[in-house]
Amino acid sequence: MTFFEKLKRSQEKSKSLLCVGLDTDSRGLPDILKMEANPVIAFNKAIIDATKDFACCYKLQLAYYEAYGKKGIDAVEETLAYIPSDILTIGDVKRGDIGATSEQYRYAYQEMFPFDSITINPLMGSDAVEPFLQREDRGVFFLGLTSNPGARDFEYLELTNGKRLYEEVTDKVREWNTAKKNAGLVVGATKPDELKALRQRAPELPFLIPGIGAQGGSLEAVLEANGDGLALINVSRGIAGVSKGSDFAEAAGKAAQNYAEQMRAVLSM
Amino acid sequence: MTFFEKLKRSQEKSKSLLCVGLDTDSRGLPDILKMEANPVIAFNKAIIDATKDFACCYKLQLAYYEAYGKKGIDAVEETLAYIPSDILTIGDVKRGDIGATSEQYRYAYQEMFPFDSITINPLMGSDAVEPFLQREDRGVFFLGLTSNPGARDFEYLELTNGKRLYEEVTDKVREWNTAKKNAGLVVGATKPDELKALRQRAPELPFLIPGIGAQGGSLEAVLEANGDGLALINVSRGIAGVSKGSDFAEAAGKAAQNYAEQMRAVLSM
Repeated sequence: MTFFEKLKRSQEKSKSLLCVGLDTDSRGLPDILKMEANPVIAFNKAIIDATKDFACCYKLQLAYYEAYGKKGIDAVEETLAYIPSDILTIGDVKRGDIGATSEQYRYAYQEMFPFDSITINPLMGSDAVEPFLQREDRGVFFLGLTSNPGARDFEYLELTNGKRLYEEVTDKVREWNTAKKNAGLVVGATKPDELKALRQRAPELPFLIPGIGAQGGSLEAVLEANGDGLALINVSRGIAGVSKGSDFAEAAGKAAQNYAEQMRAVLSM
Repeated sequence: MTFFEKLKRSQEKSKSLLCVGLDTDSRGLPDILKMEANPVIAFNKAIIDATKDFACCYKLQLAYYEAYGKKGIDAVEETLAYIPSDILTIGDVKRGDIGATSEQYRYAYQEMFPFDSITINPLMGSDAVEPFLQREDRGVFFLGLTSNPGARDFEYLELTNGKRLYEEVTDKVREWNTAKKNAGLVVGATKPDELKALRQRAPELPFLIPGIGAQGGSLEAVLEANGDGLALINVSRGIAGVSKGSDFAEAAGKAAQNYAEQMRAVLSM
């Protein structure tokens, strides 16, 4: 199954655009898990059990697993294996490098850890990202317009060709997507006006939209701006971080259900 | 000791600008190492022994270690511990993310693996890179102008303020460097004219210059363009990959000596 097909099927089955972010910090887990051999794995499995009926996607922010050393490697492997096969997975790695080095990253995050898709930083250009786009069954979300204040420093810069840098990136991602329909764009939820304009600019691209909740993005505004475009709307702390008590999984499940029901109401899914 | 002091001392002691790249691919090692418990560690130690009199710096390209799983974690740890303490280390990770995520990466590559410095992708802007610049004894090399053809896609774009994107990045890195003198710039060796202009634009910034040898950069042209600026000139395959035979370490040592002697002749070090 191609990446594009898997993405669409995961949304049809779940009737949801919700991507649950597993940014699991080993140093901030509920006390009830502290006696587990690998508390991060236990936490992720409990969150997946509680949210899998409302999610079309799980996204692992690799930084948290890298900071956990060898136990982090176990956690990525076991979490990936535990996610139901009809739900999409994203490895949020934001890598970007050249030639032989990109091939190593490709192996790490498409083969060793078999993520359905990964995030990639496009700054170094076409030859740097090309290795990640070789497999039709593996997707790549490129950083387009991010949700943080620092996006003003470079992403918004005006070019002499009349575009802003993030628009130039978007146009390039559209080119990269033509061969295998496996490229998408990261667009922050905190910028609904720009999201709406990017949706018109690139109607065919899947968007990964982080920044709902803790970062200040509004689900309602994002749904309106995105219209009927193919999108994954990520929520991390607003689901997996709602409670630190023994009810952490139940609370995550309720939060996920709430997000999914808002989506279903607006989109008539 | 600050990052800036350690960088200068490592060059004064070695009388060299040579950074030896340890981009060690576990799948392409000399046969003689294949019976080792962790061949990457054995390889790196042999290369370090053979080159340490000619190098002021070792750079580990993390992609290769990530693709090696748990043994890669051991290899980073043991390699870092084996490098003499008066030689600078760089973790070539090219990360870049926001807020809490950057803090995880910072922990991973400044504490868990105590690299003296790391490479960072600046695309997401000031708040994204700020966590990496907190420690005065840890340096950060930001991607400025890379050595690959894809640099044309974005890095060279002309802005309405009259600069190219890589020049805008350079100016921002100069700002980021003012507080703690721990920021530097990655500038590809394949572009000596731009290197010369960047050297004039940012005379105080340390440059990390990759791309000599396999990627086509000329040491002579780089030395001329860089003048007396503070620089680390990286060679990876041109040292560690010269021989796949049982003489791999000896061949690496000779190659490193050759590079260092060329530098000493031109710079009268």
